[in-house]
Amino acid sequence: MVLDRITRPNDIKKLSREEILELSSEIRNFLLESISKNGGHLASNLGVVELTIALHLCLDLYKDTLVWDVGHQCYTHKILTGRKDGFDKLRKFKGLSGFPDPSESSCDPFIAGHSSTAVSLGLGFAQAAGLKGSDEKIVSVIGDGALTGGLAYEALNNASNLNRNFLIILNDNQLSISENVGGMSKHLAGLRTSSGYQGLKAGVHSSLEKIPGGDKLAKSIHKTKSGIKHLMIHGMVFEDMDIMYLGPVYGHDIFALKSMIEKAFLYDGPVVLHVITEKGRGYEPAIRHPARFHGTGPFEKETGLPLGAKISSYTDVFSTVMRKLGDRNEKIIGITAAMKDGVGLKRFANMFPDRFFDVGIAEGHAVTFAAALAKRGLIPVVAVYSSFLQRAYDEIVHDVGISHAHVIFAIDRAGLVGEDGRTHHGIFDLSYMSTIPDMVICAPKNKWELSDMIKFAVSYDGPIAIRYPRGAACDMFKEKRAAVELGRSEVISESEKHEDNCRVLIFALGEMVKTAVDIPGKVGQKADVDVVNARFAQPLDREFLDKAAGEYDLIVTLEDNVRSGGFGEHVTAYMSDIGYKGHVLNIAIPDTYVEHGSVGELMHELGMDADSVANRITDWVYKE
Amino acid sequence: MVLDRITRPNDIKKLSREEILELSSEIRNFLLESISKNGGHLASNLGVVELTIALHLCLDLYKDTLVWDVGHQCYTHKILTGRKDGFDKLRKFKGLSGFPDPSESSCDPFIAGHSSTAVSLGLGFAQAAGLKGSDEKIVSVIGDGALTGGLAYEALNNASNLNRNFLIILNDNQLSISENVGGMSKHLAGLRTSSGYQGLKAGVHSSLEKIPGGDKLAKSIHKTKSGIKHLMIHGMVFEDMDIMYLGPVYGHDIFALKSMIEKAFLYDGPVVLHVITEKGRGYEPAIRHPARFHGTGPFEKETGLPLGAKISSYTDVFSTVMRKLGDRNEKIIGITAAMKDGVGLKRFANMFPDRFFDVGIAEGHAVTFAAALAKRGLIPVVAVYSSFLQRAYDEIVHDVGISHAHVIFAIDRAGLVGEDGRTHHGIFDLSYMSTIPDMVICAPKNKWELSDMIKFAVSYDGPIAIRYPRGAACDMFKEKRAAVELGRSEVISESEKHEDNCRVLIFALGEMVKTAVDIPGKVGQKADVDVVNARFAQPLDREFLDKAAGEYDLIVTLEDNVRSGGFGEHVTAYMSDIGYKGHVLNIAIPDTYVEHGSVGELMHELGMDADSVANRITDWVYKE
Repeated sequence: MVLDRITRPNDIKKLSREEILELSSEIRNFLLESISKNGGHLASNLGVVELTIALHLCLDLYKDTLVWDVGHQCYTHKILTGRKDGFDKLRKFKGLSGFPDPSESSCDPFIAGHSSTAVSLGLGFAQAAGLKGSDEKIVSVIGDGALTGGLAYEALNNASNLNRNFLIILNDNQLSISENVGGMSKHLAGLRTSSGYQGLKAGVHSSLEKIPGGDKLAKSIHKTKSGIKHLMIHGMVFEDMDIMYLGPVYGHDIFALKSMIEKAFLYDGPVVLHVITEKGRGYEPAIRHPARFHGTGPFEKETGLPLGAKISSYTDVFSTVMRKLGDRNEKIIGITAAMKDGVGLKRFANMFPDRFFDVGIAEGHAVTFAAALAKRGLIPVVAVYSSFLQRAYDEIVHDVGISHAHVIFAIDRAGLVGEDGRTHHGIFDLSYMSTIPDMVICAPKNKWELSDMIKFAVSYDGPIAIRYPRGAACDMFKEKRAAVELGRSEVISESEKHEDNCRVLIFALGEMVKTAVDIPGKVGQKADVDVVNARFAQPLDREFLDKAAGEYDLIVTLEDNVRSGGFGEHVTAYMSDIGYKGHVLNIAIPDTYVEHGSVGELMHELGMDADSVANRITDWVYKE
Repeated sequence: MVLDRITRPNDIKKLSREEILELSSEIRNFLLESISKNGGHLASNLGVVELTIALHLCLDLYKDTLVWDVGHQCYTHKILTGRKDGFDKLRKFKGLSGFPDPSESSCDPFIAGHSSTAVSLGLGFAQAAGLKGSDEKIVSVIGDGALTGGLAYEALNNASNLNRNFLIILNDNQLSISENVGGMSKHLAGLRTSSGYQGLKAGVHSSLEKIPGGDKLAKSIHKTKSGIKHLMIHGMVFEDMDIMYLGPVYGHDIFALKSMIEKAFLYDGPVVLHVITEKGRGYEPAIRHPARFHGTGPFEKETGLPLGAKISSYTDVFSTVMRKLGDRNEKIIGITAAMKDGVGLKRFANMFPDRFFDVGIAEGHAVTFAAALAKRGLIPVVAVYSSFLQRAYDEIVHDVGISHAHVIFAIDRAGLVGEDGRTHHGIFDLSYMSTIPDMVICAPKNKWELSDMIKFAVSYDGPIAIRYPRGAACDMFKEKRAAVELGRSEVISESEKHEDNCRVLIFALGEMVKTAVDIPGKVGQKADVDVVNARFAQPLDREFLDKAAGEYDLIVTLEDNVRSGGFGEHVTAYMSDIGYKGHVLNIAIPDTYVEHGSVGELMHELGMDADSVANRITDWVYKE
């Protein structure tokens, strides 16, 4: 295999043309083999095999810098930088990360899991190189979907001041995760369907139409004798922003790409090279269903069908409830930021197209837009992943909070998400949301409670957030289904009381209730342990806590959020306010970025599984 | 006076042409008179007198909606909606807000103090109107400076799907607060200097060059016999994003503007009307120094010179230290988001133009860009107002935090800012910054400590934030100048100890130390009160707190941040962890949005002045 000869950067440069072509096909097979077995991001990686190879042929990653936006399409890059053997443990506990990671390789300049950062980062590297007088090459690869994010635009707007080369590859697969939205997307579509590019695809050799600025480049391209198929048409948005635009070029011809990239490096300023790629390239099921093969679990390679039983997730519950509520109440609006499938609004979108808005990767706009809808009496539900909602913190403070707008935040992927790791864990939302005055924050213990909480949120009048995790929805405690009331908790289990025993309350939020119920049986016999479902992180159930102050020696809070500013600290502060004489123990994610791995492994590692918590309680009980 | 006849919306429509012209001149005088006496936003308001009058002539604000971006240019709008008499108390405690405020008038759809929200809000109103089938008019007015913010772009990108009218007035004064930056700015400059617009300004009647789409509009404009001077040239960025572009038009001819606005309303889709205005129009000092007259205190009308003594602010200290450090260490980079003057980086920018970056109103980009610079060994100092840094929360979590980049955050305007009110108080930063793992957060007690902390931050290796308030820098305690060490507090005053007295510790952060020192003398004789300067909100001085646990009956934390997730709650949580048997009292901003007024008035109102805190301590002491 050619692939076996690639163990570090620049090895690829020793290959012949034929070997390089063979390599691309081997990589594609390797990716399919590996991801079908272990899961991972498939469609986007299949789309950039040739582009990555071309970039590695043009760069020397011992000194040059390659920034992948979002980063989940970096698998070929990982393979070419000597990390092929790590793919068996890709995205697994202590294994290779699914994103670029400087701790794995100096060829990864930054961890990137959130969209639209690559131009800002690349511009920073380019300005730093400029200050040092270094001629190192800087390349950022950004998808067309990421261009819907305001951060990318802010960076492009700043790029025009740069007076050295900085190559921005616009990897245009006409999709972010599902389809793309907005005026910019239409603009790119216009460029793609331009007669020049269509002609190129059909095999017609189109010549240069115009070279906007850049003398050195112009000369170089005019002189070229290689017969490489390339062409240039106007990319108005970029040119209007004073950034050189080249393209579009076909993204699956390694040598044509290489030639274009080399030419783009000659320009003394920022250059956008518009590359058209096909998401899922080479694997029919992924081409047909790019959203399903965005991030996937293991699947059968022949058919593309998922392996393992289909789980019923909180997202599924949300999806069903939204559909029903949408049917009943025409004020309900569904809003997503490029995650129609991921957050479960696809069916809502199909049934109520007028009341559904996919705003692109634009969480800030989603929130401010929703605030205005709410002020007109509509009931917007903004469904966003926890870690991505961080992008809209100010908009929640400034546009929803101050105006007390009735916007419902459906915060999916709250808590640990598992394989996606540090950038994707939703472990800050309880903290940042509870800084916002009057924000109601609740979390369901099981799938029925999620349904009840969504209905409660619709009937409530003000800003309200419901957070729930990735993965299978808890279907325990079906019998516990008290009506959801603002700031009211719910008793889950009470132990028999023994005269001399220590009285312990586990006050658990959301998904942690499932963990909590296993704890009483694991704590030593000197303690009587009750479990209460807090339901609301804000406002707290003060009436219950007042009562609890007189009944319990130890109150244990349990949450899958960082401790700082989270649910537990607020309970501690309240108990301190009322002069509680017992002890409060906050069990929460430590204030750190948590690596990747299965949720179970991570919870154990963090001391947050039932056994670990029970041990900590037992220690306390025996110490007292 | 014509102005006296304007007491509510639509009154203006009863005036003759001559009276309207007279009105605009009366309003300009009124603004100048009022703001020179009381302070306020001058330059931007003088720039939009005619534009506001034209909009009010075209709209019926009993049903139509007018959204002002940022909002500080809404003074003429306030006057025309019956709020003239409130200008005596403009921006004063219990007086008129300096921003749009729905609680003052139904003609203000939203509170807006942060930039770039108007298109998102207007689009929300427009979509809501579409769903209701209402033909109400929706207008958003956004400045060219606000277009550098990613949120505005996200909204424009979403506007193209709208199939009803939505008028976006681009109020182009070629400035945000000081000068504008970036590719978009250059693009607008290109439109402004186009021969068509130059011709128009010179009195040449240019005819329509092209009508991009919009049949109804095209017909209407072609049919016009009014001889009104208007013209259209290509606004490529907007057209490329599938938004109709009209302009540029001259912004100080009320009737030409009115005619253009009426025509723009005829188009079935989003329309950008590009209006060129002059910031400070009609008042020479404001034209010459728009930044100084952006938000100003009282000044002498004849000369423009400020009234009252010049104060020495924390911003001034920061400015001086940055200049000195910049001279000594060429790795230091200054970054601002369109606030070069406001944050005190103007002199740094002049001295070190290569190491200074004004990124526009683009806090997110500022932070991610800084992360990349830091990873190349430079030392970026991101100087942003506290409430605006909220825009970059995710970038701090994702790009600075995860990579532990040595980015220094100089958080100006932390705590209460006074007259700008709810949208501008910097009362969340301690909370949101302390959710970020490993983020160091400190706050100086006086101007010398700010200087020492900046130097400490330069020598530290990791993410670090220094927060300091608006207004005069504290110049007390000059003698207290212990070296700044990570997570180390400092004793300010110790009282004589009396055997049976209650031992009280005031653990104060930053500017609150000044308040704290007045408290011991105001607490009854049964308490011995010590004052300690916490210095660090994160990490806390645990060594000191461990010791304090054994010495004090009551620990009072004092901070000018909301309580939720702030400094005090973290102290409470730590004291709970170590089993502290005394009581912790958190004095903080209540978890609410705080109105406007002087900082002194607000602190008193919130129970955070020395007298109020002393009373609370005394109450506790006598209760125990």
